[in-house]
Amino acid sequence: MASMSDNVSGAATKFRLALIQLAVSPLKASNLSKVRTLVKEAALKGAKVVALPECFNSPYGTNYFPEYAEKIPGESTQVLSEVAKEHGIHLIGGSIPEEDGGKLYNACTVFAPNGSMLMKYRKIHLFDIDVPGKICFRESEAFSPGSTMCTFDTRCQLLVYPGAFSMTTGPAHWELLQRARAVDNQVYIAAVSPAHNENDSYVAWGHSSVVNPWGEVVAKAGSEETIIYADIDLKYLSDIRQQIPVLKQKRQDLYSVQAVQN
Amino acid sequence: MASMSDNVSGAATKFRLALIQLAVSPLKASNLSKVRTLVKEAALKGAKVVALPECFNSPYGTNYFPEYAEKIPGESTQVLSEVAKEHGIHLIGGSIPEEDGGKLYNACTVFAPNGSMLMKYRKIHLFDIDVPGKICFRESEAFSPGSTMCTFDTRCQLLVYPGAFSMTTGPAHWELLQRARAVDNQVYIAAVSPAHNENDSYVAWGHSSVVNPWGEVVAKAGSEETIIYADIDLKYLSDIRQQIPVLKQKRQDLYSVQAVQN
Repeated sequence: MASMSDNVSGAATKFRLALIQLAVSPLKASNLSKVRTLVKEAALKGAKVVALPECFNSPYGTNYFPEYAEKIPGESTQVLSEVAKEHGIHLIGGSIPEEDGGKLYNACTVFAPNGSMLMKYRKIHLFDIDVPGKICFRESEAFSPGSTMCTFDTRCQLLVYPGAFSMTTGPAHWELLQRARAVDNQVYIAAVSPAHNENDSYVAWGHSSVVNPWGEVVAKAGSEETIIYADIDLKYLSDIRQQIPVLKQKRQDLYSVQAVQN
Repeated sequence: MASMSDNVSGAATKFRLALIQLAVSPLKASNLSKVRTLVKEAALKGAKVVALPECFNSPYGTNYFPEYAEKIPGESTQVLSEVAKEHGIHLIGGSIPEEDGGKLYNACTVFAPNGSMLMKYRKIHLFDIDVPGKICFRESEAFSPGSTMCTFDTRCQLLVYPGAFSMTTGPAHWELLQRARAVDNQVYIAAVSPAHNENDSYVAWGHSSVVNPWGEVVAKAGSEETIIYADIDLKYLSDIRQQIPVLKQKRQDLYSVQAVQN
């Protein structure tokens, strides 16, 4: 999960977001080459923020992660840095398997228009599922969870989730959870999946989408490799927050959510 | 919001829940009389837990609340107590305008099968909305917010929301938020609305419903006065929690939600 808070978005009230629903192949070099091509296409169409899916440089599967894992910085993040700088965009680098100290992490990086890495986030909530007859997959068998939150800002305006939901949870929960997070927090939500491929060992649902702060889907991919675009309107977001001022009713006198200091 | 935690539900793994989507009239005595009739009907059909809508004894509107408000215990809660005892059910008394010390509260009470009041909850998050050309309503103009949470159990199995969504938020958010809360917390969710009536000053959306822990709507009313039923299956709920063990991934080492001690 990568976030863009009020101060990062600055004074502009509109910008174009692009989500790249990449068809991830077993060839890492091919994945990175396609990233260059598709980010260029998105930038040429006016996107100022571009996001890649979860695990964009490697097939998604516990058996693949050790082989495809890299240091950060490394080969894949070098490509992200170059591409962000070349097109002058913010690039949310989905995630890649990261190796550090003998452990693997599901790591998201974000790059600034000058090519510098703004942030590295290691997924802290790993996903395990075992639905008999449908799917058994335990991310926690391969990855170690991260221990650092990249933001604790509660007034974000855009939340971007690189994700790879399955054919079991995808139809049931993918759009539902995006729409709910949008309404709960009165934010834009973007979720970026790898493209659907029946031949993958873990078959992703696809359907990358963008939801506005009223909970409406404003852009949505199908299953195949594609780029979807949405114009993020921070004035509209501000209007919604005025219309239903939920934060005014928040009862910080009764409860609080706190980061634990370690 | 009323909750039923693991220890309240006891050893039974299935029970029938009924939601009474009452057509609330300006006659308080008529509303209370219909509560007696409809709760009896629900109990005869096997319901062990019965829930009434938000503001079931009074029209919903800031101009009505002062006139219809009561002390607790008072006339309306006396009826709830008698009805719960007569039929040997748990009765979630939606809400009524409560007067105490010159202030008004939006208060939910819950009664045990022996007629005793188990809980009183004063709505702590009041709802204000102002969507130009559609709806302007400020619950906070009439009600004071409560300051006591009735539960802080994070492993509830059923959450019941007596609610009166509007014709603006109802179509957009009513079912969405129920389904999301069900998936987020892996619980059954029930939401009980007054019936829809075009002639009311505040027109409720209706559509009372029950959602299972996978996020599926298992019972749903239309607009009119009705009772809907759902068989709550705690074994199914337990299975869902095993299939996707989200609590195992919760990072209490990184963040925490805490009740503030006053």
